[in-house]
Amino acid sequence: MLEKMGKAAKQASYHLSVLSTVQKNQALNVIADLLEAESAEILAANALDLADARQNGMSAALQDRLLLTPQRLSAIADDVRQVCRLNDPVGEVIDGRLLDNGLKLERRRVPLGVVGVIYEARPNVTVDVASLCLKTGNAVILRGGKETYRTNAATVSVIQRALAQSGLPAAAVQAIESPDRDLVNQLLKLDRYVDMLIPRGGAGLHKLCREQSTIPVITGGIGVCHIFADESIDFAKALTVIESAKVQRPSACNSLETLLIHRAIAAQFLPALSEKMAQAGVTLHASPEALNTLQSGSANVVAVEAKDYDDEWLSNDLNVALVDDMDAAIAHVREHGTQHSDAILTRSISNAERFVREVDSSAVYVNASTRFTDGGQFGLGAEVAVSTQKLHARGPMGLEALTTYKWIGYGEDLIRA
Amino acid sequence: MLEKMGKAAKQASYHLSVLSTVQKNQALNVIADLLEAESAEILAANALDLADARQNGMSAALQDRLLLTPQRLSAIADDVRQVCRLNDPVGEVIDGRLLDNGLKLERRRVPLGVVGVIYEARPNVTVDVASLCLKTGNAVILRGGKETYRTNAATVSVIQRALAQSGLPAAAVQAIESPDRDLVNQLLKLDRYVDMLIPRGGAGLHKLCREQSTIPVITGGIGVCHIFADESIDFAKALTVIESAKVQRPSACNSLETLLIHRAIAAQFLPALSEKMAQAGVTLHASPEALNTLQSGSANVVAVEAKDYDDEWLSNDLNVALVDDMDAAIAHVREHGTQHSDAILTRSISNAERFVREVDSSAVYVNASTRFTDGGQFGLGAEVAVSTQKLHARGPMGLEALTTYKWIGYGEDLIRA
Repeated sequence: MLEKMGKAAKQASYHLSVLSTVQKNQALNVIADLLEAESAEILAANALDLADARQNGMSAALQDRLLLTPQRLSAIADDVRQVCRLNDPVGEVIDGRLLDNGLKLERRRVPLGVVGVIYEARPNVTVDVASLCLKTGNAVILRGGKETYRTNAATVSVIQRALAQSGLPAAAVQAIESPDRDLVNQLLKLDRYVDMLIPRGGAGLHKLCREQSTIPVITGGIGVCHIFADESIDFAKALTVIESAKVQRPSACNSLETLLIHRAIAAQFLPALSEKMAQAGVTLHASPEALNTLQSGSANVVAVEAKDYDDEWLSNDLNVALVDDMDAAIAHVREHGTQHSDAILTRSISNAERFVREVDSSAVYVNASTRFTDGGQFGLGAEVAVSTQKLHARGPMGLEALTTYKWIGYGEDLIRA
Repeated sequence: MLEKMGKAAKQASYHLSVLSTVQKNQALNVIADLLEAESAEILAANALDLADARQNGMSAALQDRLLLTPQRLSAIADDVRQVCRLNDPVGEVIDGRLLDNGLKLERRRVPLGVVGVIYEARPNVTVDVASLCLKTGNAVILRGGKETYRTNAATVSVIQRALAQSGLPAAAVQAIESPDRDLVNQLLKLDRYVDMLIPRGGAGLHKLCREQSTIPVITGGIGVCHIFADESIDFAKALTVIESAKVQRPSACNSLETLLIHRAIAAQFLPALSEKMAQAGVTLHASPEALNTLQSGSANVVAVEAKDYDDEWLSNDLNVALVDDMDAAIAHVREHGTQHSDAILTRSISNAERFVREVDSSAVYVNASTRFTDGGQFGLGAEVAVSTQKLHARGPMGLEALTTYKWIGYGEDLIRA
């Protein structure tokens, strides 16, 4: 079955690859309109998914993530209209020149072809990913979470009708609609048809894809993010950044998990930190050296465990450790970080530049919150994933990351000398 | 053992990543000089490898590929000096701007980190890859063919001494020196330390890496390359391109394997083709429709078999098939090609542009030989591999393909709104 989907997606991708931006935007507008016009169908499917979720004891927070309302569906449709306004990267001539050998050579930006996306229980991702792929002339095979498979099926059915209305192949957007897990394993081997695989989920999903997929995989989304507060900081300003990076949205992958503090300021800074974190409702997981001082403060404090440094809290918890100097701070980030987002707070140009050069993360900040790592914040207009590996794209992936290039050589009956 | 190599390579990569271009070029010059000064040691190791090769009945052609002479070693050293002259892509600011949210954001080009390269029996690749990785600030783990492992070990030993003389960590260039095949399997799982894996070899090696590696892999190097001669061609000019693409270096992956001819010109063109290919010593593998006409010509002709369309000849053999139109030509290339290099010969602008847009290959040519797909020919100065997949880099990979980027955000105690 997946073989057939893959083949159809590849054929559809040939069709999509030669569309003009105007044609693609027209189809996107039809999709947006039809999502609203056919909302009853999608909401009915969503109600069934939610009934199952309730029966299976899904938490209220997850149920809310799964829930669609007419208002939420309209917001999703508006996001599709927003994608129309983004610049289409396809067709851009990246560079080119007339070579000494006589060849007129250019690199032209083209769609990847077929993109596979595996994601978890959020129904908006279906429309989001489909619209970004369509905008860049890619076909897409979607595999959503089993908790939303009826919602996804109804959504994709509406999208496919919109594609047909626009004269585009329905196979441009396909979903694996059975919750059968074996289909994921089949998808991972579909390298003959699928050009890029994006897992959007937890560490287990990324590991599965890295180990089993024969399709090139974009891994990412796991963020053990650090802030290093060096000895030159302004306490009040630093605390504002630390608090925001931690509590603004603790469940986000770019939120702060570990604060490293230069030993020279620890005695003065830790009490101020404790007070601020107590107000913010953050539990501190303190290294042995920081524990005593923090325990006399007002924040909730426990001793950090070694493994805490290597995992995301995704909650109002923060590791706190002291370091001797820049070397130790950088070594800690290299050892425990996930190459997502790390920041230094400092007044020193040389410390700032050293941190920027030596910390090998997708996004590195000077006197700014790690929370900025986001396609919207970076002005990319959209985000299909956040990559923490180094090939192809790093950090927030916008439309450009859904393209590749081809070399085009023009000659006049030209042969190699 | 490989765990230890990987760890050492990662540490070395941190050191290399902050070197200036001048420092890297100085080290490259020391390597070049020492390869010549210590040539006796490398040549002695090479003599032992060659003795084994003779004993194992290696063909004269492969023995010649394996052989090093003082002249060849000097040429290799000169190639290293040539790498000094190439532009260093590391440190380039790709783009950047001041965002509305107050963040001063830039994308800066940085080394990948650690590159793994698996290659076959050519001793020059060892120095070639090491120098390109060093130039771009990457550490490298090399795994050469078992036929050259003494030569490679001696070469890497000389390179490591040169690195030490330059004050750089020897672990910047390491070789897996045992011919034990299990070590390749270990290397493929070293994703914790190795950022990119480049296999340089046959289809079997690429398949192994795609299926087993947990490190992102660049696949490529397999070229079932096509030329489509449409109905508008000038026969004499077209034959010149076809002959050159086929016979100039048949063993190269960018050489021509299948010629597609528009049916409308077959009756006139096939006899001329036969004559030209007879002179060039090319055996034609003809489709049923072309067979009769070709058999009355002077070239050696056999009936093509279905599987011939899907494999590289890498010899003076050429498949010849007739097609009805552009649709059929493009469909054939999509079905049988390897997304390496494909060309159209035509006088028609619309046919040329259609071929360029619809053939999904790394390099697409109009009235030029497929043989141009090469880092040197493309003006990249060097080539670490030819990629036929779509992530990260496509076609000839120069120095830029050995880099990634990081996002750097500067703020003034900036938090996300």
